[in-house]
Amino acid sequence: MLETLKQQVCQANLDLVAHGLVTLTWGNVSGLSEDRRFLVIKPSGVAYDKMSPADMVVVSFDTGAVVEGTLKPSSDMVTHRLLYQQFAGIGGITHTHSPKATAFAQAQREIPCFGTTHADHFYGTIPVTRLLTAAEISAGYELNTGHVIVERFAALDPIAMPGVLVASHAPFAWGQDAADSVRNAVALEAVAAMALDTFALAHDTGPVDQFLLDKHYYRKHGKDAYYGQR
Amino acid sequence: MLETLKQQVCQANLDLVAHGLVTLTWGNVSGLSEDRRFLVIKPSGVAYDKMSPADMVVVSFDTGAVVEGTLKPSSDMVTHRLLYQQFAGIGGITHTHSPKATAFAQAQREIPCFGTTHADHFYGTIPVTRLLTAAEISAGYELNTGHVIVERFAALDPIAMPGVLVASHAPFAWGQDAADSVRNAVALEAVAAMALDTFALAHDTGPVDQFLLDKHYYRKHGKDAYYGQR
Amino acid sequence: MLETLKQQVCQANLDLVAHGLVTLTWGNVSGLSEDRRFLVIKPSGVAYDKMSPADMVVVSFDTGAVVEGTLKPSSDMVTHRLLYQQFAGIGGITHTHSPKATAFAQAQREIPCFGTTHADHFYGTIPVTRLLTAAEISAGYELNTGHVIVERFAALDPIAMPGVLVASHAPFAWGQDAADSVRNAVALEAVAAMALDTFALAHDTGPVDQFLLDKHYYRKHGKDAYYGQR
Amino acid sequence: MLETLKQQVCQANLDLVAHGLVTLTWGNVSGLSEDRRFLVIKPSGVAYDKMSPADMVVVSFDTGAVVEGTLKPSSDMVTHRLLYQQFAGIGGITHTHSPKATAFAQAQREIPCFGTTHADHFYGTIPVTRLLTAAEISAGYELNTGHVIVERFAALDPIAMPGVLVASHAPFAWGQDAADSVRNAVALEAVAAMALDTFALAHDTGPVDQFLLDKHYYRKHGKDAYYGQR
Repeated sequence: MLETLKQQVCQANLDLVAHGLVTLTWGNVSGLSEDRRFLVIKPSGVAYDKMSPADMVVVSFDTGAVVEGTLKPSSDMVTHRLLYQQFAGIGGITHTHSPKATAFAQAQREIPCFGTTHADHFYGTIPVTRLLTAAEISAGYELNTGHVIVERFAALDPIAMPGVLVASHAPFAWGQDAADSVRNAVALEAVAAMALDTFALAHDTGPVDQFLLDKHYYRKHGKDAYYGQR
Repeated sequence: MLETLKQQVCQANLDLVAHGLVTLTWGNVSGLSEDRRFLVIKPSGVAYDKMSPADMVVVSFDTGAVVEGTLKPSSDMVTHRLLYQQFAGIGGITHTHSPKATAFAQAQREIPCFGTTHADHFYGTIPVTRLLTAAEISAGYELNTGHVIVERFAALDPIAMPGVLVASHAPFAWGQDAADSVRNAVALEAVAAMALDTFALAHDTGPVDQFLLDKHYYRKHGKDAYYGQR
Repeated sequence: MLETLKQQVCQANLDLVAHGLVTLTWGNVSGLSEDRRFLVIKPSGVAYDKMSPADMVVVSFDTGAVVEGTLKPSSDMVTHRLLYQQFAGIGGITHTHSPKATAFAQAQREIPCFGTTHADHFYGTIPVTRLLTAAEISAGYELNTGHVIVERFAALDPIAMPGVLVASHAPFAWGQDAADSVRNAVALEAVAAMALDTFALAHDTGPVDQFLLDKHYYRKHGKDAYYGQR
Repeated sequence: MLETLKQQVCQANLDLVAHGLVTLTWGNVSGLSEDRRFLVIKPSGVAYDKMSPADMVVVSFDTGAVVEGTLKPSSDMVTHRLLYQQFAGIGGITHTHSPKATAFAQAQREIPCFGTTHADHFYGTIPVTRLLTAAEISAGYELNTGHVIVERFAALDPIAMPGVLVASHAPFAWGQDAADSVRNAVALEAVAAMALDTFALAHDTGPVDQFLLDKHYYRKHGKDAYYGQR
């Protein structure tokens, strides 16, 4: 079942490697079926160079049970599933430990919008979650990771802000589909790298003007977008 | 029409990838026809690995209208066209979001000439534009991006200083033709990376002596150049 | 003899190159035979691109004498052998001069656990040895390098902390076998790179909470591990 | 003439690219013939991907005149020739603008010996030359670049210290032959990168103990060396 989606999700995982965002087996990409009944995700701890579409694991959106595949799904599947349930309109999720974004997550610092590269992809400051409590970690850790992300987005639109830094952990990014979530993960890492150097050059740099943020974000997104083809 | 130029511009865009200056689809290169009647530019938001010379878009230098090509030109085409109109003698333009140069643009810091690598390509401090106003962004944004560059060059020679950092945005570089503009974009990124580390090693480093700048710049440029073949 | 182990150790050395941890001929990987009678190690100062399994050197675990192979073993073999003798349960060792971990070794700074990437592989702060004395360097240098590592682990479990920074020198990592020690060397370098940037972003960042460290470490290690397949 | 040497020098130039030390056409390697009558060097400003042994230029050691080759030699040939004349025992020279070493040159900071990676290749602090005067730059610039290097080595042994940073310019490295000089250029860049990060981690780090420097240097060099094969 879902052969096309499995192929897309497998390719998205491999694209993560091609973009240099993967060390060892860290990182995973999932995609949601169009009818929102299933999510397809990378298996847990499998080497990227041996992965094929047939290894992708199909999980029920409703129950979280594996409905196809001989391998265990990524242990982060529970986090992915909660995000699909809570963030209407997203169809793909990417989790990485990409080095520069992870440094921000570890330092528990948000990434201000310092330029148009950022504004093209993220509408404002990229947020950091709060730390999980001991209780949240000891039981239902992966689900609670999803919960602190959702909690952080209480006043944020996940469509306009397709990424987050989980404190002391690493980034998650999402998008319309698996490939789009990978693009946002790539942009998040690039933006984090540039922000690190921007801080080094000018400790007190502030974010860009709101009108520049609006311009660049809406040049690429929404009904008046005019970037790209069509 | 202009098949050779399309091939050169396509190759220059691919060279940008080969030099590691491209993330996702960020960046574009254009070239001017010898009769200065047309500019050829990368289409907007197209993946580099699927790009061929036939995808290049031909635009009228006089009117800015697309005269050949089925795809939309890069949204930065308007900026390119203004630079060709204002900077006599340039025949190629490269725009990137290369990470180290972009960090300087975001920090709104100029790049002093710290060494011969810089002096070989840029005759003096690489300038930063002023920020655009809300009005300049809301109407004619891409054209006004060109205008702030031209404004910044009021007292500068674009032939001797073939690059600029647009504040809160990213670098533009130019040259005799598309390939030459790519070389200057590569040099700009390398010079920015070295300058970042030079600042880290010695916060108060000043620029090189004027006579060293003169020596290296004129060793490679102008009538007394003796670097390279012929 | 030990053709399979030679193949594994040769491959592990080549993997070190593939992971970008090797400059010139710096670095070496060894593996222990299942009966713990022999260790197989890379020859000294041989170029990686010309290395084959037949070049691997077989050394007696008991005597340290070369028992097979026409090349000299890595000069660090004596250090490897002592670690195998002192650290029960390890079956592979990797030594590199990977740049970020080496910077910590040179600065004689331990690497605090700043996030889950670290916690997934190293149970706590990655330690630095003391400096060797003049006497320890002048006679039995490589053996004494092993001794200061073992001394540093007096109160540490080498299974839970599969790596160390030798002061003014570089990292050693180990694991169940040669391939596992390479994975830990890769993780050590990645964790060092992230820690450097974390320090740059927040000078006073402290380590993660103990319960997060426990969660991530035991999610991957020990009897209750549930990461990966089986 | 000197076909083998041309092949070696061409290969050494290509190795420089493979080691990631080259941007655009920056950098050049030369080698001295065994009878010390000729030096073979890369042509000026030629793209690496189009270079073959036949492009190498043969120059007379005595007169500095081109004795074979249709292309102009690298403009740095004059510097190379002076170093061969003044530094007895060297047979190859590599000049690069490798980014981290160049940052030290630009900051006019020497590189202290912070660890064994450095000690394995350079016996002590890697020196920086003084700046050239206006007069030295205006006439005989490339020759005077050689002179300030030689001047800096008045109390240094170029065999034990096979590299230097030319102030406001970039590094030169040398060795027994062309390939050896490339290895030293690679080591110099790696050592510079590590030193930059070591400074970031501990601003007041001092150099390693003299006995550690002696141990590592003489483990690899001189009559009692025991690293490598034979």
